[in-house]
Amino acid sequence: MPPTRSTDMANSFDPAQPTRLGVSVSQLLLRRNRHLGAPYRLFYQRPVHLTHGSGVLLFDDEGNEYLDAYNNVPVVGHSNPRVQQAVHDQLGRLNTHTRYLTDGVVDYAEELLDLFPPSLSQVMFTCTGSEAVDLAIRVARLYTGAQGVIATRHAYHGTTQAAVELSPALGPNPAPSPAVILIDAPDMLRDDPNTTARDFADRLEAAIAEFQRRGIKFAGLILDSVLSSDGLQVDPMGLLGPAVDAVHHHGGLFIADEVQAGFGRTGSHWWGFARHQVVPDLVVLGKPMGNGLPIAAVVGGPELFDRFSRETRYFNTFGGTPVTVAAAAAVLAELKERDLLANGERVGQLLRNEIETVTSDNPAVAQVRATGLFLALELVDVSSLVPDPVAAARVVNHMRDNRILISASGSQGHVLKIRPPLVFDESHVSRLIEGLAAALAEGVPTPT
Amino acid sequence: MPPTRSTDMANSFDPAQPTRLGVSVSQLLLRRNRHLGAPYRLFYQRPVHLTHGSGVLLFDDEGNEYLDAYNNVPVVGHSNPRVQQAVHDQLGRLNTHTRYLTDGVVDYAEELLDLFPPSLSQVMFTCTGSEAVDLAIRVARLYTGAQGVIATRHAYHGTTQAAVELSPALGPNPAPSPAVILIDAPDMLRDDPNTTARDFADRLEAAIAEFQRRGIKFAGLILDSVLSSDGLQVDPMGLLGPAVDAVHHHGGLFIADEVQAGFGRTGSHWWGFARHQVVPDLVVLGKPMGNGLPIAAVVGGPELFDRFSRETRYFNTFGGTPVTVAAAAAVLAELKERDLLANGERVGQLLRNEIETVTSDNPAVAQVRATGLFLALELVDVSSLVPDPVAAARVVNHMRDNRILISASGSQGHVLKIRPPLVFDESHVSRLIEGLAAALAEGVPTPT
Repeated sequence: MPPTRSTDMANSFDPAQPTRLGVSVSQLLLRRNRHLGAPYRLFYQRPVHLTHGSGVLLFDDEGNEYLDAYNNVPVVGHSNPRVQQAVHDQLGRLNTHTRYLTDGVVDYAEELLDLFPPSLSQVMFTCTGSEAVDLAIRVARLYTGAQGVIATRHAYHGTTQAAVELSPALGPNPAPSPAVILIDAPDMLRDDPNTTARDFADRLEAAIAEFQRRGIKFAGLILDSVLSSDGLQVDPMGLLGPAVDAVHHHGGLFIADEVQAGFGRTGSHWWGFARHQVVPDLVVLGKPMGNGLPIAAVVGGPELFDRFSRETRYFNTFGGTPVTVAAAAAVLAELKERDLLANGERVGQLLRNEIETVTSDNPAVAQVRATGLFLALELVDVSSLVPDPVAAARVVNHMRDNRILISASGSQGHVLKIRPPLVFDESHVSRLIEGLAAALAEGVPTPT
Repeated sequence: MPPTRSTDMANSFDPAQPTRLGVSVSQLLLRRNRHLGAPYRLFYQRPVHLTHGSGVLLFDDEGNEYLDAYNNVPVVGHSNPRVQQAVHDQLGRLNTHTRYLTDGVVDYAEELLDLFPPSLSQVMFTCTGSEAVDLAIRVARLYTGAQGVIATRHAYHGTTQAAVELSPALGPNPAPSPAVILIDAPDMLRDDPNTTARDFADRLEAAIAEFQRRGIKFAGLILDSVLSSDGLQVDPMGLLGPAVDAVHHHGGLFIADEVQAGFGRTGSHWWGFARHQVVPDLVVLGKPMGNGLPIAAVVGGPELFDRFSRETRYFNTFGGTPVTVAAAAAVLAELKERDLLANGERVGQLLRNEIETVTSDNPAVAQVRATGLFLALELVDVSSLVPDPVAAARVVNHMRDNRILISASGSQGHVLKIRPPLVFDESHVSRLIEGLAAALAEGVPTPT
């Protein structure tokens, strides 16, 4: 059962459904609806009213504790003291734009770029992943002198007008311009694993041919390197290689959107593209970069940025400011010194094994997919393999009622999404597994 | 003499010009050029290497003190302790996106909206003015079902692909689409003050007629309500009234870009549009909102946001997060409790009077324009009234060498721009005036 309206969102609070919310939540909701624009949505059929957080725990206004198994932005933990201190110190010293020389932005750029292949040697800072996607697309189009951009069928790349065109996950409005073509992402559940990479590249080639028919030159391909909005399609390693080769063969650029996959989310690598042995022409960074402070970036090579600079001007007032850079530097230090990539790899593997165990006798869980601490459970109707977003919503809300926060994504909102802060450790796994098993038992009963 | 390349920027460091920079600046510059993309520019022929700031003062790596008479972002002062404390406290408590209920964003929305006319009763938060402009344009186009947007000839509204089209101040690349028409802004120096408002409205009407010829429906007009990139065109009060009436007569929306004018910059009013007795349909807020933390917003009415919400989805991960909202709330508290609008009005008037006095015998200063603590001096060739960007650059760099920071803007970069933090007080005026008089004497010699 697909969402009923084009603007429906997986796991969103629906005020039309009867729910006992309690007085404090009801009153806050009333004021919120009055003052914030209608596009504001809430998670869960019983929205959560949060007041504080620490590590992987969140607390509501009644002091109830929640296990956060969803939020990737606070990558080094809610209320991380090192980030707090770094921001505090820098706010007491200096916070200006980048048209003055300051040390921090250069120091951080060096440290960040050390984590990339040599051809990706320069960075431009923005405040959000959307701004970074928008900039990367502009750089790619000006460099290639071409307009045609390819993205995947259920991609999400951001909220600016240019990024929305590449974000069909937001629903069919507005329809993309002729300069955008959407192709089906690989589907680990339904594809033949031996041909999925080649088939994806073939769909890309067909789209490039379609651009030719339209008289539109091909500029490039943008992919979330873990294809999270397409349901977290992460295997086999090397999956994206043939498509990226085809992009380059046709003179286009490959833009890796690492907003989801980057900064160690995949466990084994700093960046999702590295799992596929490809080197992007441009890389977009975002969400976890500042642990919640708005900082994002585009990484690329000088030939692209030089050309962009000759063609137009770009300046982002809050991009690369000392305070957001201080937060980002603290995040890198935490990731490295606490060895959080290895932690994510180890805990993610444990979590995956446990999930496989508790779901092994439940055919409605058609597939468990995972990379590092990003896990997905695809829920389907057992007899038809048709996506089952209703079951996914039941599981998500059941777990929320047990104070474990996850969400859903995928083409129909039928894929459970588990993506905790990277400080999630073994001690949190059992609580998550217990809640998941109970929710699946209630939300997705095994046929008997 | 106009800029020689399309991407030239007023008051930018030109590495091709011989300048003695000193070892520490040269070395930092080298590393910066290696790691940051080519679009990064610096102010001044001798770039300033900043290490800390306080109030209206900035300090470089050698401990030299600069008077900041340029930066509007740190509206309540560099390193403002109240903002620092508010951010610190919130970073230690909670920082999540808006799909959970939190109190701060609702409390702040109420306080902010109290400062607007009743029809502007809802807000959507973004991280930057560019994102807010991009969103406002999307809201306007979806609401009107029309694409045609009008902006001024030298406007600057932001850096996303959609905002760049409305930002000819960035240079002629890329050319705007047929859905954008640029019209000349009012020109206080050259227009007849009795007809300037009507003439501007007539140019707007002509642009709407041009849209009709192109078969493009008219969506609206976006204006910086102090027209800062067009040289700060602020008088007479009511200047924008006839144009806004014409917009509404033709079924379009008026978007007031208050990124420059808002939060008391004009002294007498919270918002620049209020000086013209007009009520916008959408208002864009940005730069000073969080004193340097990335927070921005679109303010509008529910009918617009409701329609937008029915047509598409919008979510901004870092928009309206507890930490940036805490900074914004601290800024509002400082502006109100320290009565900084009245301070800006009073000190701005004093500064204007002093500037009028020291420039009264210098015909190259063709006009002094001001509103609150935003002041502009238009420099021209005396005999022809032709803009003189070379003189402006000389003055700006002379003042920088005397450690007083201003910049230049306007159609040719020939308009001196003075726009200090609103904590600028009487004690700073004499230092600024002394430096300005010296720079004008050297940079723009009075004909003898």
